[in-house]
Amino acid sequence: MIKVGIVGATGYAGVELIRLLLAHPEVEVTRLTSRAEAGVRVDRLFPSLRGGIDLSFEDPANVHFEDCDVIFFATPHAVAMNTVPALIEQGKKVIDLSADFRLEDIASWETWYGVAHVAPSLVEQAVYGLPELNREAIRSAQLVACPGCYPTAVQLGFMPLLQAGVIDPLSLIASCASGTSGAGRSAKINLLLAEATESMKSYGVSGHRHLPEMEQGLSKMAGSDVKLTFVPHLAPMVRGIHATLFAKLTDASLDLRGIFQTCYQHEPFVVLTNGQYEPETRHVAGTNRCEIDVTQPAGDTVVITVAIDNLVKGASGQAIQAMNLMFGFEESLGLQNLAVMP
Amino acid sequence: MIKVGIVGATGYAGVELIRLLLAHPEVEVTRLTSRAEAGVRVDRLFPSLRGGIDLSFEDPANVHFEDCDVIFFATPHAVAMNTVPALIEQGKKVIDLSADFRLEDIASWETWYGVAHVAPSLVEQAVYGLPELNREAIRSAQLVACPGCYPTAVQLGFMPLLQAGVIDPLSLIASCASGTSGAGRSAKINLLLAEATESMKSYGVSGHRHLPEMEQGLSKMAGSDVKLTFVPHLAPMVRGIHATLFAKLTDASLDLRGIFQTCYQHEPFVVLTNGQYEPETRHVAGTNRCEIDVTQPAGDTVVITVAIDNLVKGASGQAIQAMNLMFGFEESLGLQNLAVMP
Amino acid sequence: MIKVGIVGATGYAGVELIRLLLAHPEVEVTRLTSRAEAGVRVDRLFPSLRGGIDLSFEDPANVHFEDCDVIFFATPHAVAMNTVPALIEQGKKVIDLSADFRLEDIASWETWYGVAHVAPSLVEQAVYGLPELNREAIRSAQLVACPGCYPTAVQLGFMPLLQAGVIDPLSLIASCASGTSGAGRSAKINLLLAEATESMKSYGVSGHRHLPEMEQGLSKMAGSDVKLTFVPHLAPMVRGIHATLFAKLTDASLDLRGIFQTCYQHEPFVVLTNGQYEPETRHVAGTNRCEIDVTQPAGDTVVITVAIDNLVKGASGQAIQAMNLMFGFEESLGLQNLAVMP
Amino acid sequence: MIKVGIVGATGYAGVELIRLLLAHPEVEVTRLTSRAEAGVRVDRLFPSLRGGIDLSFEDPANVHFEDCDVIFFATPHAVAMNTVPALIEQGKKVIDLSADFRLEDIASWETWYGVAHVAPSLVEQAVYGLPELNREAIRSAQLVACPGCYPTAVQLGFMPLLQAGVIDPLSLIASCASGTSGAGRSAKINLLLAEATESMKSYGVSGHRHLPEMEQGLSKMAGSDVKLTFVPHLAPMVRGIHATLFAKLTDASLDLRGIFQTCYQHEPFVVLTNGQYEPETRHVAGTNRCEIDVTQPAGDTVVITVAIDNLVKGASGQAIQAMNLMFGFEESLGLQNLAVMP
Repeated sequence: MIKVGIVGATGYAGVELIRLLLAHPEVEVTRLTSRAEAGVRVDRLFPSLRGGIDLSFEDPANVHFEDCDVIFFATPHAVAMNTVPALIEQGKKVIDLSADFRLEDIASWETWYGVAHVAPSLVEQAVYGLPELNREAIRSAQLVACPGCYPTAVQLGFMPLLQAGVIDPLSLIASCASGTSGAGRSAKINLLLAEATESMKSYGVSGHRHLPEMEQGLSKMAGSDVKLTFVPHLAPMVRGIHATLFAKLTDASLDLRGIFQTCYQHEPFVVLTNGQYEPETRHVAGTNRCEIDVTQPAGDTVVITVAIDNLVKGASGQAIQAMNLMFGFEESLGLQNLAVMP
Repeated sequence: MIKVGIVGATGYAGVELIRLLLAHPEVEVTRLTSRAEAGVRVDRLFPSLRGGIDLSFEDPANVHFEDCDVIFFATPHAVAMNTVPALIEQGKKVIDLSADFRLEDIASWETWYGVAHVAPSLVEQAVYGLPELNREAIRSAQLVACPGCYPTAVQLGFMPLLQAGVIDPLSLIASCASGTSGAGRSAKINLLLAEATESMKSYGVSGHRHLPEMEQGLSKMAGSDVKLTFVPHLAPMVRGIHATLFAKLTDASLDLRGIFQTCYQHEPFVVLTNGQYEPETRHVAGTNRCEIDVTQPAGDTVVITVAIDNLVKGASGQAIQAMNLMFGFEESLGLQNLAVMP
Repeated sequence: MIKVGIVGATGYAGVELIRLLLAHPEVEVTRLTSRAEAGVRVDRLFPSLRGGIDLSFEDPANVHFEDCDVIFFATPHAVAMNTVPALIEQGKKVIDLSADFRLEDIASWETWYGVAHVAPSLVEQAVYGLPELNREAIRSAQLVACPGCYPTAVQLGFMPLLQAGVIDPLSLIASCASGTSGAGRSAKINLLLAEATESMKSYGVSGHRHLPEMEQGLSKMAGSDVKLTFVPHLAPMVRGIHATLFAKLTDASLDLRGIFQTCYQHEPFVVLTNGQYEPETRHVAGTNRCEIDVTQPAGDTVVITVAIDNLVKGASGQAIQAMNLMFGFEESLGLQNLAVMP
Repeated sequence: MIKVGIVGATGYAGVELIRLLLAHPEVEVTRLTSRAEAGVRVDRLFPSLRGGIDLSFEDPANVHFEDCDVIFFATPHAVAMNTVPALIEQGKKVIDLSADFRLEDIASWETWYGVAHVAPSLVEQAVYGLPELNREAIRSAQLVACPGCYPTAVQLGFMPLLQAGVIDPLSLIASCASGTSGAGRSAKINLLLAEATESMKSYGVSGHRHLPEMEQGLSKMAGSDVKLTFVPHLAPMVRGIHATLFAKLTDASLDLRGIFQTCYQHEPFVVLTNGQYEPETRHVAGTNRCEIDVTQPAGDTVVITVAIDNLVKGASGQAIQAMNLMFGFEESLGLQNLAVMP
């Protein structure tokens, strides 16, 4: 049994962390901080948690997490980097769901996020928390930087073919759709039901903060520079990332599904659909799963489709998967629930 | 550990039963029947169940459930009554989610369902499976008739005030809304996304099959005849029943919330919101909970609001709650998950 | 051809006014004001209007509407009452969609809206803009106070039976559901798609600002005091009001559909469904129509169901219907479009 | 004033044709056929049309359209080819919304649709009804084959750059999402609200009937063979096609928005968003518009985004646009309505 704290627990990744951790048999959630909601009972802000938790949000200024074994940050960017260094010095394990420790290129991070990074040495120390790529490093990490939602879907989709060296790394295209929860629990007109339902649109065609994170990871998989064209879309739904990926095959004679099978056969959360059905976000909603299929249409352009829940495999579930590795628990502990259907 | 069979496992109540039973620590699901899908793997029809179940649907003609301790029927009406008698004779426990054993008045049942009842003696033997009303009887029952979704919401809403004798039993009104999953997994044009989304309508204003079931139960609570005006609506969502109930108070000086508190204080699944927030179907989606509030506006008309998930507390979850009682398990075993939010 | 100005043109009622007025053959929209968006092109804020309008929003401080024949106010409450008096003095016609001139009882208005009314004499002068009730008075009005969305649905539903004297005016109940656009184009967390979709809830059970407006109108129809229990709900959709109304019949032998037929036979926008189908909000979405049916279940409680579009018949369309009457145009001019289906 | 008949008027394209034609000032709809609904009043099947039309569906076996000037076919594939030849011989104008006369390569058509084509000579005679490409030919056509919904979006998106010769025609990729109305008004489980809402999925990755139609059109624009990788998706909404297109630029120095501007400056229904906002399906819902933007991210892969309403510009509206050209009406007559917002 470990004790867990969460900083920034009032956003969508935060409440999803709470829900999942409350069901985890080896975890006790002991501290939740929120500047805006300090003093408010957690189950008053989130009535769905009634009966599951008997805590109130605390002011982060007053909380030092001495009694916690691990602290999750579910904060906006540029928050964790201020507080994490002290926790690391205390010897605490830290799992950051924000972007603060994801990008090795500090200059690039500062360009995209518009502030100076105050803990660059921790960026070096942080382990990128994609278990399918970095499992062993995560086990021994003190600080894990969890991937973003789009980067999780895109990297898991391209990884087998990039590692196998069978696609041109300069030809990558990702057309992705996200539910509106990906934009966070913030009051914006464009996210109102009245504005966002019954409509599809792209956004950020000319540039998105997740692009350098994806190129960094994909380049490592390829062993060389990659070029990725990334177009995110807002879909009229709450949860889910659907990614449709394209690349030029360098060898059209290959058994692509076999490559995916070899790559992912022991992964607890990757589900290959093998042409029996196509990945669909509702199959994975509320779960830590990632559904993937690969299809080779006539011609040399391969198509890979991926579905995850942006708040689980794309955020809080993946963070708990990392926690399980860091503490020697079974990797899927507390993450085995199946999607509610319909 | 008990062995469980499900007849008619391909509908929405059926797949929800599977999902919930797979997570139940004392249950092994061993047999699932479906005439239409015999031979098909369960996780092929319902990909969300991949990894959780390694069975195929079987033809009901070939399955006799000798190895099962309890059999659930998630079939359309007029199916269970044909098969249940033999199972009861074999000494099996049976939990029927359909309407076959709910109505004590056989003639009324035959009028509403348009067929002759072939097992009227079992109707007498069956226990109505609303634990908040019938807990002790369910414990020792061999055959449980689970309440319908509307009847669950309406009866739990009116019960405290009817039992306390503080409302006029001839003045009951229920205006209820259901998600489209309540109409079942059947291909009908009016249930298409293109027809049912972004719209509200009533249906069955002139009469609904659930009315006599409600009047039967409410009359017992009142100890006298009741008169209920019931208007169901189709809401543009998948899951959930929201019930808004009205009745004439016979004594306007009462502490209505106190009456609810007394009635439901030990109930594991009833959540009283006490004016802090209003019951909302998303708070209970995917869970066995029932949120209730009571408000007394100026005047003598009391308003009670209720939210349940039609497929869980209104069907499969309540059936498992009954199973837990019948087998001496903790009543909430396997039913403690919280709603996914957002 | 008349010239029209709109104050507060950036809310949902405002943009709907623009859309409808642009299609009106006798109207030229010449001035649109908005404090927040002054200087912004209208079709930049609302891209759906591209090609239809070549204006920018103007700062209300600079606009005096000298060149306008009629000015619409689509402002929050307590705005119009400050500006309308000067316009009335100039001889302009004014159509107010807000609550400022709806309630004859100034004290009640001040209680519900929490501010002092600065133009009580205009309240006396204003005509309540429900054409089915007040057609002749609207024709000659200088100032029209348009009904709210709930009051439109509830009053049109009860009017025939109240006027016919066949229901008990102290027994009225209205259970209504609104799409989220009814809450306006304002950035609130509870209106986000991620919060409001796939859920039903009541709100304001203990009191709602539209109640005194409804009771005022219903009392006039009844010729005596009425008692209304009103429960509004938020439905997971953008547009539409669905009202389900209940009342005690004082004479159960009556031809209720005949009473509605007599009352509404010449109304251009009331559609009686006569039991052939039930009123449904998608049938009227985007249109000025009001679908109504009345059903008499067994017993003495009559059920009336009503569907309107909250932004058209419940706001902007009804305002234009009033304008048509005030300027002697055909009542349905510019309002004859049919609902988009599906 | 012309007289119009519609064959197969009960599907979604059919009812949308009726709605639009009823608002067309030069059209009288005189005959509507449907095998399944013969004898049923049109406004009984589609209550939204009440007051707009006083006709019943007729059995196609009894209707010969002698009194019609033009006949629309909104039928499934392989229906029109049987009936159109006789109408053409009678001298009638025919506008077919189905696939029967779209593909010049009869063998390819027969492969994709699985039946022998019975009127190949009419395929040769038919004019492909994309006005932005074929305006003059449509004016004088007797038989117009309207483009499919995906082909309209994809062709309008690629046309300017293909005609300008600035993209590699062998590098085309289209990732498109459609609302569920694109699958028609047919009772299928996968299109139920309970199955299709709140989810995104691809379908037909391995091949889609619209692909040869797109390649045929794009090849003509390019003046050479093209290679298109096409992935359609089902989006959780009713209406709309959103297309995100990718291609390799052969000259990265070009003013891409200028090329689009030149190409589409006189088009009545193409709206270029020029980076001010991104195309969004709700901007065009219910209208004949096509919103397009082009963006050149760093690198040589151009991204084009397109939004149309699948039932209007992707079907019935475009068919009426063709009709206007064929009869010498103003091209946008009856098609000028703006999208309902929100």
